[in-house]
Amino acid sequence: MAKAAPLSPLAPKTYPACPDVEGVRFATAEAGIRYKGRTDVMLALLDKGTQVAGVFTKSKCPSAPVDWCRSKLKGGKARALVVNSGNANAFTGKNGVASTKLTAQIAAKATGAPAGEIFLASTGVIGEPLDATKFEGVLDRLVTKSAPGGILDAARAIMTTDTFPKVATAKASIGGVEVTINGMAKGAGMIAPDMATMLSFVFTDAPIAAAALQAMLSKSVAGSFNSITVDSDTSTSDTLLLFATGAAAKRGCPKIAAATDRRLAAFKKALDALLLDLAQQVVRDGEGCRKFVEIRVDGAASAAAAKKIGLSIANSPLVKTAIAGEDANWGRIVAAVGKAGEKADRDRLAIWFGDFRVANKGLRDLSYDEAKVSAYMQGEKIDIRVDVGVGKASWTVWTCDLTKEYVAINGDYRS
Amino acid sequence: MAKAAPLSPLAPKTYPACPDVEGVRFATAEAGIRYKGRTDVMLALLDKGTQVAGVFTKSKCPSAPVDWCRSKLKGGKARALVVNSGNANAFTGKNGVASTKLTAQIAAKATGAPAGEIFLASTGVIGEPLDATKFEGVLDRLVTKSAPGGILDAARAIMTTDTFPKVATAKASIGGVEVTINGMAKGAGMIAPDMATMLSFVFTDAPIAAAALQAMLSKSVAGSFNSITVDSDTSTSDTLLLFATGAAAKRGCPKIAAATDRRLAAFKKALDALLLDLAQQVVRDGEGCRKFVEIRVDGAASAAAAKKIGLSIANSPLVKTAIAGEDANWGRIVAAVGKAGEKADRDRLAIWFGDFRVANKGLRDLSYDEAKVSAYMQGEKIDIRVDVGVGKASWTVWTCDLTKEYVAINGDYRS
Repeated sequence: MAKAAPLSPLAPKTYPACPDVEGVRFATAEAGIRYKGRTDVMLALLDKGTQVAGVFTKSKCPSAPVDWCRSKLKGGKARALVVNSGNANAFTGKNGVASTKLTAQIAAKATGAPAGEIFLASTGVIGEPLDATKFEGVLDRLVTKSAPGGILDAARAIMTTDTFPKVATAKASIGGVEVTINGMAKGAGMIAPDMATMLSFVFTDAPIAAAALQAMLSKSVAGSFNSITVDSDTSTSDTLLLFATGAAAKRGCPKIAAATDRRLAAFKKALDALLLDLAQQVVRDGEGCRKFVEIRVDGAASAAAAKKIGLSIANSPLVKTAIAGEDANWGRIVAAVGKAGEKADRDRLAIWFGDFRVANKGLRDLSYDEAKVSAYMQGEKIDIRVDVGVGKASWTVWTCDLTKEYVAINGDYRS
Repeated sequence: MAKAAPLSPLAPKTYPACPDVEGVRFATAEAGIRYKGRTDVMLALLDKGTQVAGVFTKSKCPSAPVDWCRSKLKGGKARALVVNSGNANAFTGKNGVASTKLTAQIAAKATGAPAGEIFLASTGVIGEPLDATKFEGVLDRLVTKSAPGGILDAARAIMTTDTFPKVATAKASIGGVEVTINGMAKGAGMIAPDMATMLSFVFTDAPIAAAALQAMLSKSVAGSFNSITVDSDTSTSDTLLLFATGAAAKRGCPKIAAATDRRLAAFKKALDALLLDLAQQVVRDGEGCRKFVEIRVDGAASAAAAKKIGLSIANSPLVKTAIAGEDANWGRIVAAVGKAGEKADRDRLAIWFGDFRVANKGLRDLSYDEAKVSAYMQGEKIDIRVDVGVGKASWTVWTCDLTKEYVAINGDYRS
């Protein structure tokens, strides 16, 4: 668990200073959900008029808070976000449904907002009943002490096996007015694509309508959160929510109704970069990881095929253990390409580790210098490129290595 | 590698005595393909008239020997099988194709059989050129010394990271005449379904035509080799060949032309059991394994859905590490069911470890005794049963746990 794991060697050296997003206030508390001596509840208070969009796990067994958020998203409005760590409130049956309802009621009473505009997320152990009465009193206090700063503390409160809090910030101009986007995320196991893996919450003061937010968000996750994998395991609780308070309108920012509005160009770019940053931070905190791995697939028949091949490589335990062993074992990459089931020309396949081409035209590149490649494999960032030789489409995915520490962490999580 | 790894704790205590299959002779040699001080070439000589069937990896990057076997299978006849360990002759380009051709030519010369009736398989490192000239002289000697016994030695010669040789034997009656089926297999990493994972060779003296053998084999692998997984990685080289010498015809066994022939009922049953035995032995020698895990999925919408859910559980690193940690972490099973993408009713889901029902109707079974379940998890064989509550279809799959030793073995394979 978080308390025991040492800081990931791939953790960022510094955290970015996130300027306040007008209309958002944070507060955290120790509610004793499961952990002792650390914060485990986070409240984000959102000014009236905040618009919201979200993407969720594709799991057929989603958690109760995921069901709750999905149903509330239809209104497009949000006034508060309540997140707890330590208990996922997943696979908790009717009890879990009742628990989300009670949490929202307590939050509604504390904030004065309608329960239908309270968004919820829970992360932690699956299958244990979540006692929502623990939020009684706690949320009142959080409302009182909530303040614009403190996104880093908020990011800390939602951690489980994460070894560092994940925040990112970006600026963009809409119609000549600068807006801010801040985001946070948590991982770190059970990370696989097919949605916004894990929990991530993004806040902006841009005045963008819910439908436009939703369209942008759904598109943006494809190349970020849906292109990362730690261990191929999709969570029951994956939730990514994007909140827009619209406060920048007071500073003359034009109100945006549609995602096709050209004035969103810079915002979209900034959002893409911010989500990718957060997604990569999740990988950099993959359980037991020591290497950050970027896998680019070129020459595929389609982008979807390139992505599938990339994820097949990224999810291969044999590839991941080889990287942990600092072994440029491209034979295992060939096997992973082969098992993806997508078109690949075995006899035109080429593979690079960094700038070193180790295989070409379907066999070992006889010119490569094993000593240099071995030295490269000792680095912290490993770039793998594969050209499958059948088309022109590309995709890039990110993962980490598979180490003994991963096994140790996950063989001992509940105890 | 094999030399270093200790015997799997799940290895069988004894090897079965395999009675000779008339028409089959084995011999092995140390050809120095890669390993030193151990056998690495196996020859099976087959009497004239032997019929053959096969199933292979679905990898889009198959090895050269897989391509070779596929093309030769059309003739339905086999006179010899040459297998080497230490080098997979996969991803070796034109060199690899030339290498299979030369191996078959050397074998043809040594045996006096047509090259088109020589079957080949290679296992070991991918991407290294296989020097087929190493078979010169070696195969001549093997023909000379080949003898009916020795299937256990043959099984030893094809091992790579296996810690024990895998053989199985069965008897069946066809038209009142007893026939024998012997089989061998090797694993042990890169084991995933979608074909006859790894290498397996099965021999019988039953007089069954190639087309009938093929139909039976293709059907039989679904519930055996295609229902096991060690690490979800499909090899480039997976090959399962079934040879029928027909020698039992001399003892009055009726010749069988079609798989629909009712006289095959007992033979089919014996073949199914033998393939399942071999497949389970492969799992029992999964790299680094300490637990043998049987996962049965009930209540699914279809058998295919049940199998997909079963394999989703069996391939989940989080489930497998929990089992390694002797933790009855059914929350991870819920997550694995959810990510399979098949229909499941979260609120009717039930989960058992052995006879202990730990979850029921979509939440924790409050009556279960944690101490008893924990004691159960310390056993060597773990049975998991999941009822997904939507239909009547079932499937069973087998896997092993994921341990630190798996990571150690695979992080250090090439070096």
